[in-house]
Amino acid sequence: MGFWGIEIKPGKKVNPFHEDNLQGRLHVTQATLGLGSSSEKSILQCFREDKPPIFLCTLLPNKIESCSLDLEFDDEDSVSFSVTGPKSIHLCGYLLVDDEDVGDE
Amino acid sequence: MGFWGIEIKPGKKVNPFHEDNLQGRLHVTQATLGLGSSSEKSILQCFREDKPPIFLCTLLPNKIESCSLDLEFDDEDSVSFSVTGPKSIHLCGYLLVDDEDVGDE
Amino acid sequence: MGFWGIEIKPGKKVNPFHEDNLQGRLHVTQATLGLGSSSEKSILQCFREDKPPIFLCTLLPNKIESCSLDLEFDDEDSVSFSVTGPKSIHLCGYLLVDDEDVGDE
Amino acid sequence: MGFWGIEIKPGKKVNPFHEDNLQGRLHVTQATLGLGSSSEKSILQCFREDKPPIFLCTLLPNKIESCSLDLEFDDEDSVSFSVTGPKSIHLCGYLLVDDEDVGDE
Amino acid sequence: MGFWGIEIKPGKKVNPFHEDNLQGRLHVTQATLGLGSSSEKSILQCFREDKPPIFLCTLLPNKIESCSLDLEFDDEDSVSFSVTGPKSIHLCGYLLVDDEDVGDE
Repeated sequence: MGFWGIEIKPGKKVNPFHEDNLQGRLHVTQATLGLGSSSEKSILQCFREDKPPIFLCTLLPNKIESCSLDLEFDDEDSVSFSVTGPKSIHLCGYLLVDDEDVGDE
Repeated sequence: MGFWGIEIKPGKKVNPFHEDNLQGRLHVTQATLGLGSSSEKSILQCFREDKPPIFLCTLLPNKIESCSLDLEFDDEDSVSFSVTGPKSIHLCGYLLVDDEDVGDE
Repeated sequence: MGFWGIEIKPGKKVNPFHEDNLQGRLHVTQATLGLGSSSEKSILQCFREDKPPIFLCTLLPNKIESCSLDLEFDDEDSVSFSVTGPKSIHLCGYLLVDDEDVGDE
Repeated sequence: MGFWGIEIKPGKKVNPFHEDNLQGRLHVTQATLGLGSSSEKSILQCFREDKPPIFLCTLLPNKIESCSLDLEFDDEDSVSFSVTGPKSIHLCGYLLVDDEDVGDE
Repeated sequence: MGFWGIEIKPGKKVNPFHEDNLQGRLHVTQATLGLGSSSEKSILQCFREDKPPIFLCTLLPNKIESCSLDLEFDDEDSVSFSVTGPKSIHLCGYLLVDDEDVGDE
């Protein structure tokens, strides 16, 4: 299924599955700061239904420009990402073929 | 099973399985500092029965804001997390379907 | 299949599969700055058909010389890499035997 | 099998399998500096029979407080860890069920 | 098969399989600077037959002392490592049982 990537701009909640009409499991492995001249930090957050948001990583211009992640999301998870701070964050990873479902029926 | 996340506030011992009534294996892959103005470090520790605590990572505002982890916990492990320092630490990862148990009977 | 590596020079779009006539799945796991005296940052980008480019990592001389990645690409992905900045970026990883395809027929 | 952790104090050689009477394969994934006021570096080394020691990571107070690892050890490996420097290093990871052995008989 | 490690000294080309008479697949997961008082950077390179060398990581005393890697090498790869710079680099990882070959006959 290969490569997946998205740019999350500040102040918008983005559901990665709705955005690209994806199905299956999404493995998110990297976050990198977008363009811009601010030196303030940008925080990547994950929102779930009925739960407090979770910080996934914090990026700092010229010090922490990228961050390795190892996160998996199901299309049933109803998660969305958002960025707090002046710069966008580029997320990437890959879609997994959902082998576990194959034998279930 | 998808995404899992929790915020560990300073001075509280949190068992991740009790907190969310989870079952199975939990893969914890990322720790990120919470909000606050302190510049002091926060240490994430793991407590087990009858054993000394283990430091899982140390985060430092504006220098080490996040840390990749690769840790697995069973619901039988009786572990709890705690944070020493002024800021909370957000932990995230995912729940694993426990394939190994399936064929055991 | 073993080790794979390529140097991406600034300003060129490189399809990793065409460049080396590869087949299968490519796992890219590391990016490292090339030689040169500039202290400016270099950004590694991934281009896909009909989609905006995604930043994979940003490297900074003497501060962030290397970056761990965990990205998979299929030969059907039609992706290409490019570098924005003064220095080249060396990418490496390994080719995966595509087990998933074996049993399909 | 779940979580495993140990604190390696400076100047002692510790065999992780003997220390906790473990069996199987041990996956060590994280090293974190212990407490103390020194600002000198601490080096984690691995000793094997008849071979020169290997540096696994170097930690530096307030700069490199933790380090991700991805190392596997068998109970037959006869390895021991030691720390050179003023501060202890906390190691953690998890024990793997040794599936490969199951079908051998 | 467990732990593998080697120290690569500056200016020597080292084939990891010849050096230790290894067979199978080698997973290299960590690089750490050796001893010495220089503050100059050391670059780890991989050489292959008929191809330009690839930088695997760059280490910088007191700033980037270690680097996580995720690289796989086959004994048929004919690769060798070398270090450019004043300090040696310790490499470690583990040998993989080559399951893929088992069922081939």
